[in-house]
Amino acid sequence: MDHGIDLASFLLAFASALLGAKLLGEIAERLGQPAVLGELLAGVLLGPSVLGLVPLTAGIFLVAEIGVILLLFEVGLETDLGELARVGAPALVVALAGMALPFLGGFLLTHVLGYPTLTAIFVGAALTATSIGITARVLSELKVLSSREGQIILGAAVADDVLGLVVLAVVARIAETGTVETTMVLRATGLAVGFVVVALALGIPLGHRLIGIVGRANVRGVLVAASVAFALLAARAAKRAGSAEIVGAFATGVVLARTNRRHDISQALKPVVDIFAPLFFVAVGAQVDVAILNPFAAENRAALLLALGLTVIGFLGKFAAGFCAWGGVRRAFIGAGMVPRGEVGLIFASLGKATGALPEGVFVAVVLAVFATTFLAPPLLKAFRRGVGSASEKPRDLAAGV
Amino acid sequence: MDHGIDLASFLLAFASALLGAKLLGEIAERLGQPAVLGELLAGVLLGPSVLGLVPLTAGIFLVAEIGVILLLFEVGLETDLGELARVGAPALVVALAGMALPFLGGFLLTHVLGYPTLTAIFVGAALTATSIGITARVLSELKVLSSREGQIILGAAVADDVLGLVVLAVVARIAETGTVETTMVLRATGLAVGFVVVALALGIPLGHRLIGIVGRANVRGVLVAASVAFALLAARAAKRAGSAEIVGAFATGVVLARTNRRHDISQALKPVVDIFAPLFFVAVGAQVDVAILNPFAAENRAALLLALGLTVIGFLGKFAAGFCAWGGVRRAFIGAGMVPRGEVGLIFASLGKATGALPEGVFVAVVLAVFATTFLAPPLLKAFRRGVGSASEKPRDLAAGV
Repeated sequence: MDHGIDLASFLLAFASALLGAKLLGEIAERLGQPAVLGELLAGVLLGPSVLGLVPLTAGIFLVAEIGVILLLFEVGLETDLGELARVGAPALVVALAGMALPFLGGFLLTHVLGYPTLTAIFVGAALTATSIGITARVLSELKVLSSREGQIILGAAVADDVLGLVVLAVVARIAETGTVETTMVLRATGLAVGFVVVALALGIPLGHRLIGIVGRANVRGVLVAASVAFALLAARAAKRAGSAEIVGAFATGVVLARTNRRHDISQALKPVVDIFAPLFFVAVGAQVDVAILNPFAAENRAALLLALGLTVIGFLGKFAAGFCAWGGVRRAFIGAGMVPRGEVGLIFASLGKATGALPEGVFVAVVLAVFATTFLAPPLLKAFRRGVGSASEKPRDLAAGV
Repeated sequence: MDHGIDLASFLLAFASALLGAKLLGEIAERLGQPAVLGELLAGVLLGPSVLGLVPLTAGIFLVAEIGVILLLFEVGLETDLGELARVGAPALVVALAGMALPFLGGFLLTHVLGYPTLTAIFVGAALTATSIGITARVLSELKVLSSREGQIILGAAVADDVLGLVVLAVVARIAETGTVETTMVLRATGLAVGFVVVALALGIPLGHRLIGIVGRANVRGVLVAASVAFALLAARAAKRAGSAEIVGAFATGVVLARTNRRHDISQALKPVVDIFAPLFFVAVGAQVDVAILNPFAAENRAALLLALGLTVIGFLGKFAAGFCAWGGVRRAFIGAGMVPRGEVGLIFASLGKATGALPEGVFVAVVLAVFATTFLAPPLLKAFRRGVGSASEKPRDLAAGV
């Protein structure tokens, strides 16, 4: 079957993206960095501005879209709304402060530099959401996931993921119309929050019933196929409701996380995400034009200085937010845990680039700042680890180890 | 990211195809039929000629192509070349007779009816390959996989899958140039067989080494992602070598089946295939125009009569081939086990339609014949089951059950 897409080039691009992402991901991880950094770097190297093995074609973008929808579905499956309630007030305060400070900082810096308001909004918004995937993976590597600090970081990361997606819906709506009006922002916020509320209110009982029906099937793979189909339909519904596709996919994950088949769906989804999600990060990296990184070209200095400024703001905003926590915890550790940005920041950046809200230089600056904050977090977390868990936990690891 | 593909329509089509395929697949299975029939029927119903929920767009065909490449990769992973050698001569004779008889019958019938030679070749070729997936599933349900009859059926099905893909490569080459010349057929056969031989000779040691390297990775999902990347690259290489994409994917599966990570790759691949392979069958079904099924329209009668003739030939050719087996086995059971056609037949049909070799009516007749042979097999296997396994096995089930 051949229908307007050059299948041979697509297969080469898909395979190169997968191998490059996994190779550089592995190297990144061995250097003590999250794998996602390697995947972004693979995209930069494989993209049109260096090797040209991954061209920015419709086929690649389609598979990248499938990848990011499946990734957010999986993040949703790992999200427990009840957990946030248990961690309580400090997580929510950290989340809100951690969104407000970087947003304001990013917005003001971009605005002061003379960029339009829409650009400044995109830049600020891209700095709001902590990467739940990166955070959870680093905490798990340090074996502090169940400490009080770990719970607050996770709770705050979950909260600002949900809130970040609301911000994304608002910003997407602004990008579509090109103007900023209070009534429109309120309407968009209402639609996005409303979508999540309705999706959860309808979805949780519906999800239980659907999983019950699907669970009686004899045919192989019905559970995972039906779950993915729900996520795709919810993604489309979210888009129709004025929100973003990934909000729908995320909500489906949260809903199905409350069924008794959560583990089975999550297990089956893993390899699918392993194959398709890297395509998204490679496609994002491939959009970076490396020529702009040359500091000797005068026209690049603005972008590089902006990247530096955004990194400082992105770091300080989240780090300061950690100090809003209370209850005898290592607040510097919580601040460091909130620093890494990831998926959601890159989704903002690529949406801003696609709609024209982010000029080339600003797009690259945002992507560089996302890179940089993600690079900063793991060594910082290691540095501030001492004493973490002492407020809430017996030192079980020590007792068991000796 | 939005680059020339209508994402909202694509998501709706993808989700509808998945849900429809699994729903009708489940119904088919509950009626004692293989699930693939339901998936094809879902395609017919969702396609442009009935509901129109799955339009034949570039996005759908791209995902369908990914699906069929992954499916043949998985079939390759389940193929043990050593097994064929152990089952020995009868399996090979059954395989060769089971290819030659339906090919000659289909070719002659189509030729006698006045169609061009190229059309007759496609029709004959589409009837050659037994569906290994359907056969294995039915044998497993009847619990006769390890009987001598079961082993001969599986061995013959594996052999005619490999040979069928060689036929596919030859036929694809003929379709490309539009003529039939002996030297070209020999060259195409040489290229296709040569590709498989080179792929296996280079692939088996290379596969072991690559799996060894990949096995040392820390990053999640490297094994499955790298395996899929190899399959995609091999698919592209096969196409370049004048063979078909799926031949490369199948060869990659056979190569990786000989490594110690076969089981891990196979397990991880299952949900990926569960999600993407149905898209291929739905896309094939969606190409059937139901208007042609109306027997009261005079212009349809030729296609329906051809379908009936091809079904009779497809059934008799494989059933007779079963009687070429020897060694105190139930030969009628072996013949019945060879009857179901599937994936490969449909791949021939859709390739023939895409290249214009199969006119609309003949394409539908071939698809109907594939449907019909697949419908015939399960009740026949049940009917001839009595006495199967008595030549080679003690009735272990009985002893263990009491």
